[in-house]
Amino acid sequence: MTEILTIILGAGEGTRMKSDQPKVLHKVGGRPMIGHVLAACAEAGAKSRHIVIGPDHDHVRDYAKTVDSHITTSIQKDRLGTGHAVREAREAWKDFDGYVLVLFADNPLISPAVIADTVACLNEGADLAVVGFQTPEPFGYGRILVEHGQVKAIREEKDATPEERKIKFCNSGIMGFKADCLRAVIDEIKNDNVKGEFYLTDAVEIANAQNKHVRGVECPFVNVLGVNDRAQLAEAEHIFQQEKRSHFMKEGVTLVAPETVFFSYDTKIENDVVIEPNVVFGPGVTVEKGAHIQAFSHLEGAYVGANGQIGPYARLRPGSNLGAGVKVGNFVETKKAEIGKGSKVNHLSYIGDAKIGEGTNIGAGTITCNYDGKNKFVTEIGDNAFIGSNSALVAPVSIANGAYVASGSVVTMNVEEDALAIGRARQENKENYAARIRARWVKSE
Amino acid sequence: MTEILTIILGAGEGTRMKSDQPKVLHKVGGRPMIGHVLAACAEAGAKSRHIVIGPDHDHVRDYAKTVDSHITTSIQKDRLGTGHAVREAREAWKDFDGYVLVLFADNPLISPAVIADTVACLNEGADLAVVGFQTPEPFGYGRILVEHGQVKAIREEKDATPEERKIKFCNSGIMGFKADCLRAVIDEIKNDNVKGEFYLTDAVEIANAQNKHVRGVECPFVNVLGVNDRAQLAEAEHIFQQEKRSHFMKEGVTLVAPETVFFSYDTKIENDVVIEPNVVFGPGVTVEKGAHIQAFSHLEGAYVGANGQIGPYARLRPGSNLGAGVKVGNFVETKKAEIGKGSKVNHLSYIGDAKIGEGTNIGAGTITCNYDGKNKFVTEIGDNAFIGSNSALVAPVSIANGAYVASGSVVTMNVEEDALAIGRARQENKENYAARIRARWVKSE
Amino acid sequence: MTEILTIILGAGEGTRMKSDQPKVLHKVGGRPMIGHVLAACAEAGAKSRHIVIGPDHDHVRDYAKTVDSHITTSIQKDRLGTGHAVREAREAWKDFDGYVLVLFADNPLISPAVIADTVACLNEGADLAVVGFQTPEPFGYGRILVEHGQVKAIREEKDATPEERKIKFCNSGIMGFKADCLRAVIDEIKNDNVKGEFYLTDAVEIANAQNKHVRGVECPFVNVLGVNDRAQLAEAEHIFQQEKRSHFMKEGVTLVAPETVFFSYDTKIENDVVIEPNVVFGPGVTVEKGAHIQAFSHLEGAYVGANGQIGPYARLRPGSNLGAGVKVGNFVETKKAEIGKGSKVNHLSYIGDAKIGEGTNIGAGTITCNYDGKNKFVTEIGDNAFIGSNSALVAPVSIANGAYVASGSVVTMNVEEDALAIGRARQENKENYAARIRARWVKSE
Repeated sequence: MTEILTIILGAGEGTRMKSDQPKVLHKVGGRPMIGHVLAACAEAGAKSRHIVIGPDHDHVRDYAKTVDSHITTSIQKDRLGTGHAVREAREAWKDFDGYVLVLFADNPLISPAVIADTVACLNEGADLAVVGFQTPEPFGYGRILVEHGQVKAIREEKDATPEERKIKFCNSGIMGFKADCLRAVIDEIKNDNVKGEFYLTDAVEIANAQNKHVRGVECPFVNVLGVNDRAQLAEAEHIFQQEKRSHFMKEGVTLVAPETVFFSYDTKIENDVVIEPNVVFGPGVTVEKGAHIQAFSHLEGAYVGANGQIGPYARLRPGSNLGAGVKVGNFVETKKAEIGKGSKVNHLSYIGDAKIGEGTNIGAGTITCNYDGKNKFVTEIGDNAFIGSNSALVAPVSIANGAYVASGSVVTMNVEEDALAIGRARQENKENYAARIRARWVKSE
Repeated sequence: MTEILTIILGAGEGTRMKSDQPKVLHKVGGRPMIGHVLAACAEAGAKSRHIVIGPDHDHVRDYAKTVDSHITTSIQKDRLGTGHAVREAREAWKDFDGYVLVLFADNPLISPAVIADTVACLNEGADLAVVGFQTPEPFGYGRILVEHGQVKAIREEKDATPEERKIKFCNSGIMGFKADCLRAVIDEIKNDNVKGEFYLTDAVEIANAQNKHVRGVECPFVNVLGVNDRAQLAEAEHIFQQEKRSHFMKEGVTLVAPETVFFSYDTKIENDVVIEPNVVFGPGVTVEKGAHIQAFSHLEGAYVGANGQIGPYARLRPGSNLGAGVKVGNFVETKKAEIGKGSKVNHLSYIGDAKIGEGTNIGAGTITCNYDGKNKFVTEIGDNAFIGSNSALVAPVSIANGAYVASGSVVTMNVEEDALAIGRARQENKENYAARIRARWVKSE
Repeated sequence: MTEILTIILGAGEGTRMKSDQPKVLHKVGGRPMIGHVLAACAEAGAKSRHIVIGPDHDHVRDYAKTVDSHITTSIQKDRLGTGHAVREAREAWKDFDGYVLVLFADNPLISPAVIADTVACLNEGADLAVVGFQTPEPFGYGRILVEHGQVKAIREEKDATPEERKIKFCNSGIMGFKADCLRAVIDEIKNDNVKGEFYLTDAVEIANAQNKHVRGVECPFVNVLGVNDRAQLAEAEHIFQQEKRSHFMKEGVTLVAPETVFFSYDTKIENDVVIEPNVVFGPGVTVEKGAHIQAFSHLEGAYVGANGQIGPYARLRPGSNLGAGVKVGNFVETKKAEIGKGSKVNHLSYIGDAKIGEGTNIGAGTITCNYDGKNKFVTEIGDNAFIGSNSALVAPVSIANGAYVASGSVVTMNVEEDALAIGRARQENKENYAARIRARWVKSE
């Protein structure tokens, strides 16, 4: 198979985002936009990946490295257009033998299929493949001019004839080159235009002049949606979510109100899971078959075993690992918490840095005191234990199988198997004292 | 009045739901789909109800029995089409004298009006009434062919002439028969078709051949929306919710953001109630006039008295019974809780299996410890009592009128009227101890 | 500059609202509708403001006074139409020298631009300016008849000729008069119509008969949307929210799911703030640059400093004043709480009537016990303090810089700098006691 090199352009300043953060790090579906593009490249089998970033974009490079350690980078200092950006990546393609695809880091909805179709077009003989989309409202887009199968030019709105303006096949900016073709055309691109920039789209006419085969590839508009401001970011997010919602419903997941459920790029949900309105899935969540996620739940980095009962108002943070049939109820937060089969944490609790066995019941208002201001400590609770309500478990501490903690206790020492721990003050009643307090209030008025 | 027998077909496998649960038990508006159909039958005055279910559908029968104890059932083992399903119900109609209506258990938005209109059509002389809907996009539906008021046939898309395809009056599947007519036609239906199934729609042509009066009944499309997959389930839910939202707004309820409020089939709300965004009503909720339900609240099986203040983030579970002017605030869960006029539970509390009088204040972080791992116990609190914050009330326990519980107490014994209960350890301060802890941290680094 | 008097008509009974509350006090974007109109008047430079209210509308007057202490009021006892309402306001305009604008208190989306355009029209020579809107579906609206720039009449649907019905320029009801013109026409309006009411729209034909210049002013439909029932109230709210969402996205705020975020009329948010799905902003909120508001948060009367981390499920109530980088996490409520730079309240806490320094950590389940049933008291916590989890801080109490409160303590006395406070019972373990409890259960079965 021919080798594929993807060059991902991401040096733009993104001024309209009004952000201190590089545009391509803004997220869709819980993942930076450039992360989506990198994932599509990997999935489409592009072995070599290269990004062109701005001089102030160290964070972009750092992020890209975390998802793709082999990625190479070049820096476009002067931002003189897409043609210039590809030239700045010369190290990547100058000796490369294969196909070079130019993609955009701000196209978060790019799919592997677009890349595959572009590659197929090159396989079928094109020297240059131009990716476009059909739209009923082409106004403002560059039109792709095709004659007898050959793409002759890309015509900008302002330069188009009335006849050309009727064309509905529009330029996405994405292009695929046979490496030789790229090398033959790239330095021919001139900047003799109003902005003094080098446009990669000019490659089309240059390639034509060189008698290359230039072909069009059609893809859905959404896949090449570019994000330039926060409204477009929200639009991309919306499309992303709609696709995820449809996908999960097709797979047999009930979404009572699909438009109120938000997924991440990597959410995994089995069939017969029911998700009530207003649930947010951050990255890294898996939910097994038959689980019920009630309204207002927020899950991130969590595993929910089969038939789990989550929420409403449950917050599962990273490292929450819940066995089959576990219940995590309202106003409960879990973090780095292993909770065994059938155990329950039904109300108003914080379970952090904890390991809980099977069949254990954690009462309302239980807090694992896992932090001393400096370090985090672990709470261990065995099987079939019972933690009375409003208890504070001061870690490191372990409570063995079958042990029982009396309500309102502060537990600082380990509790043996089947033992009862009690750590609360004795109650005293003071007769008529409340009446006296109220009498004082009246007096003081 | 002529007796009505409704035969509700629900034996379908619902393969596209990808569910282990029978399709007709999937819920819309908090009620299984078949429950909506049964309710419409009852409301329309159909005294005899019969369901046809699959051989693996015990849960459907069990559910149907809970809502309609007189319902009869037959099992369609071989799933050979709608005509076959009606034959399998022979016991129900063979000696019946009246009207037999065939309905579908997966039409959750069926209205009593559709049933009434079908009955009216039979009253007016029809032997067979065919229920259809008008749609601008009839493609794919069976067309109802009408000549001079007589329905002559139902024509499937693939068998229709170009002329017939223009017909916009489409078959819902629902039919009403005079019992004699049903008996005269049902065994004439043949399965000489590609799938080898018996289609009830064939009854139309058979009845025509017998010179019966066959008439059309028109109903809105939404009422006969069939649910075959999770996307259609979500669509039915959406339509259901939109109708509920419009209904309550018309009745004088403020919905700040109607599209974010979810009702159940039996929700009751008085006028001048204000409902903020993101509120979920499970089954069994009544809210009286002037109450304010703040954002992110979740109510189920609860009664909210006039001018109650609920939320944000209040969770009222079944058995919550709140008097006039009661406040239940953020991160508070109530369950089997009677709370008297003007009492307040403002923050971070769990009030379960409790009876609270009037004018009582429950401090932040109060937990009723109602469970000992085996049994549930009751907490009783009188009028004008004051429960200090972060108290644990260990049931069974009673706190009398005007009593006062000091903050941070664990209450295990009853408290007399106007008495003060205090159950907390004495504080000790250790000079410079925190500084020493920190010094130790630094050392260990 | 010519003086402007705005007369705001708000006496309508609002029957279709089905409310005990005067219609114009129902809220849009967290502010009564009439408040929006008053704000638009003030912003457009109308120095004199007058409202016409119903005889049972004391609350309207009271509210109006709170936002505009110079406002004058008249009472329309008999509700005999808009012309009558303006007559009832005679005291306001009888000696007034300038422009008199008649507006409606149930137009919550009125913009200062509409008022400015009306004033401009009078400046340019009109004696009477009639404000209308273009709509593709004019059915039911009064049409504005214009000939050679002169508005000749306002024609109601029922009185219109087929030709007139095609007019798409429709009457909003809003009018601007030169004061002399108003005085010249107002008493000429007759009530010889079916309802026996005095319609201000008749002023147009009367002014024409007096050879006055009557001109049309065009404004967007949304600005003159009238609210007559709860569905229209929801529609106005929706438009209001859509405008706010677009506005903030343009300003560089990320809204992951714009349709799930609700703002108030006075919300202030800086760029590079990220707002997750399902966030509600009540009145009086400011969020500084770089803050992150996580899902399910509810803010009201709160200030969030730069780079603050709020939520999920954080509830900031009025008087919450958070320094830079403060974290307020899940199931935390703050109220009248000053929290210094970099301090953290991460879980399940109530911080009310408190002043917390910088760099302090408040453990999970901490409750400030600020209320004794009668009075509220303050909790003071210094810098770099550490409050162990599940502590109750019984106000008034102060915890000095660097102090440390042990988990599960009830703190009733002040804690000195760098000291450790501990106020919890000693734990006792009772061997095999839990096993004995369970054995008893088995026996009792």
